Amino acid sequence: MLQNDTFLRALRREPTEHTPVWLMRQAGRYLPEYQKTRARAGSFMGLATNPDLATEVTLQPLARFPLDAAILFSDILTIPDAMGLGLTFAEGEGPRFATTVRDEAAVRSLRVPDMAKLGYVFAAVAQIKRELHGRVPLIGFSGSPFTLASYMIEGGGSPDFARVRTMASMRPDLLDTMVAVNALAVTAYLNEQIAAGADAVMIFDTWGGLLSAAAYRRFSLGPMRDILAALKPAPDGSAVPTIVFTKGGGVWLDEIASCGASGVGLDWTIDIAQARAAVGHRVALQGNLDPLVLLTDPATVAREASAIVRAAGTAPGHIFNLGHGIVPGTPPENVAALVEAVHATSRETRAAA
Amino acid sequence: MLQNDTFLRALRREPTEHTPVWLMRQAGRYLPEYQKTRARAGSFMGLATNPDLATEVTLQPLARFPLDAAILFSDILTIPDAMGLGLTFAEGEGPRFATTVRDEAAVRSLRVPDMAKLGYVFAAVAQIKRELHGRVPLIGFSGSPFTLASYMIEGGGSPDFARVRTMASMRPDLLDTMVAVNALAVTAYLNEQIAAGADAVMIFDTWGGLLSAAAYRRFSLGPMRDILAALKPAPDGSAVPTIVFTKGGGVWLDEIASCGASGVGLDWTIDIAQARAAVGHRVALQGNLDPLVLLTDPATVAREASAIVRAAGTAPGHIFNLGHGIVPGTPPENVAALVEAVHATSRETRAAA
Repeated sequence: MLQNDTFLRALRREPTEHTPVWLMRQAGRYLPEYQKTRARAGSFMGLATNPDLATEVTLQPLARFPLDAAILFSDILTIPDAMGLGLTFAEGEGPRFATTVRDEAAVRSLRVPDMAKLGYVFAAVAQIKRELHGRVPLIGFSGSPFTLASYMIEGGGSPDFARVRTMASMRPDLLDTMVAVNALAVTAYLNEQIAAGADAVMIFDTWGGLLSAAAYRRFSLGPMRDILAALKPAPDGSAVPTIVFTKGGGVWLDEIASCGASGVGLDWTIDIAQARAAVGHRVALQGNLDPLVLLTDPATVAREASAIVRAAGTAPGHIFNLGHGIVPGTPPENVAALVEAVHATSRETRAAA
Repeated sequence: MLQNDTFLRALRREPTEHTPVWLMRQAGRYLPEYQKTRARAGSFMGLATNPDLATEVTLQPLARFPLDAAILFSDILTIPDAMGLGLTFAEGEGPRFATTVRDEAAVRSLRVPDMAKLGYVFAAVAQIKRELHGRVPLIGFSGSPFTLASYMIEGGGSPDFARVRTMASMRPDLLDTMVAVNALAVTAYLNEQIAAGADAVMIFDTWGGLLSAAAYRRFSLGPMRDILAALKPAPDGSAVPTIVFTKGGGVWLDEIASCGASGVGLDWTIDIAQARAAVGHRVALQGNLDPLVLLTDPATVAREASAIVRAAGTAPGHIFNLGHGIVPGTPPENVAALVEAVHATSRETRAAA
């Protein structure tokens, strides 16, 4: 039994005493205790592949702030690493793959990896779950099939992801194959996280927002819909709630809200009141403070966070989050102010409703 | 009298024989003849500030392709340069200002620049207009008040424009002042371009899409609305049609369509059929092919461009364009294929309608 299940109830659009809040990258570089663990691990992947250390950093933000959910500490690119592409993180830079997947032969040789290669992730889920002692739910996650493909094709981050965008129009058949293999891998990966104890799962579609509407439907939203339809129930037989987040996807909100997810993540560009009006009560909405507001000061953070709580309204189904991950350099006291403001303002608005 | 006024008629939502097409950055680095003129000029600003050379490069794409409009060759940052901030372009990099505007004193000292400092722009407009001999209309343009402020605050491009986004929540009063001064400057600037002969004017809001909905309304859309309301008629007394383009603004399309512009530019992420359904016939729509499709091959370009022409429908009010500027490395033959496909497909759809 969970002591605080507000996150799961909000995701199921059931009433809660306050608006639950968690933050993308809540375990990360802005926390000095994370930096220390990261230094002990030697490398980012050394940290991510060690269940003891992954558990330690997952729990760090919960020791500081009364967050309403934990999220597995891992990376969105563990699947292509398990496919043998060789993932590394250079200091202060983004991900880099030793091998890229750009031509027909490379695409045809892609296979769903043996989930045993990702056993460190499932071990971390199980260990975090134990060490949470039922305080709050644990969120598992994966990158989306298209976002994985973007990095696999480019070999890392890119200013414009030109190779994947041109493949989408020149060789849509190849990209179809890649995202189909990735979708099967993500399905197996999330099902193993669920079996290991994840209370909810989220698909991060970081780069789907770079696509045209037609290409987004075909290469990103469609494969995510397939995954959501193939997820298994939790070990106790209950359905596991899901969240889909496409950064830059506000323009396709109506279609995303019908993809089968329990909740839809919103980046900070959309007005959350308009988003609620557009989707009705089909789904929960998660978001959507500009993460750079956390670079300001506690009073500004509290004011802006409270404005979003009020705009989201008092109908069930809002989970407070940022519109993208916490940026390094965020003062931890600003995160404290945010969590406090979300809880206090949402209790006030419920009392007044 | 213009020999080809399809662009202006489409912008006024009047019927045309074919869908007019022009391309953002149609005069630019992908053209070898541009590279030659650019080398003669010595520097980008040397080119932009020389009316003879600016005229030459403006007309270059029209000599190659049957485009339906010319656009002044200039830069979106001429206004802050005239304010004394010292604009330069390092080879292969973006713009850079010698002076930034970040604190209260710097903001308070901002003034609308003497338009005489921008005389090179108005001279170029007049000269291009003469040398066009009425073939097609000439589009004048400016950066938006918010986009100018973004560069003025950061001192150049930025991966996340963190300073301006934090100023938006911490010191909205300072940002209000900056965009208000910029809006007055843009109004004077566009009115001078109209007086010099521009047949239409466009406001490029490259970075408004980084803002939250509330901040976009306050710091970007509002000032653009003020400018549009203050534009003067052409020397012959006729109203000058206008276009507003916010990259990433699809999520706010309904509000943008009511800002007073004749046309709204669309980036490539929005489905143009859905955009038309959303705005009705309030405005013309301009867009919206992913510019990276131009890196593929003529057959792919023709197929993707034709799909957009068909999706836009046969009701008057579509101007074909890219969803952002042409990228360097675009093969000119792909641009030829695009223009041909837009003209041919739009004639076919009209004949079949």
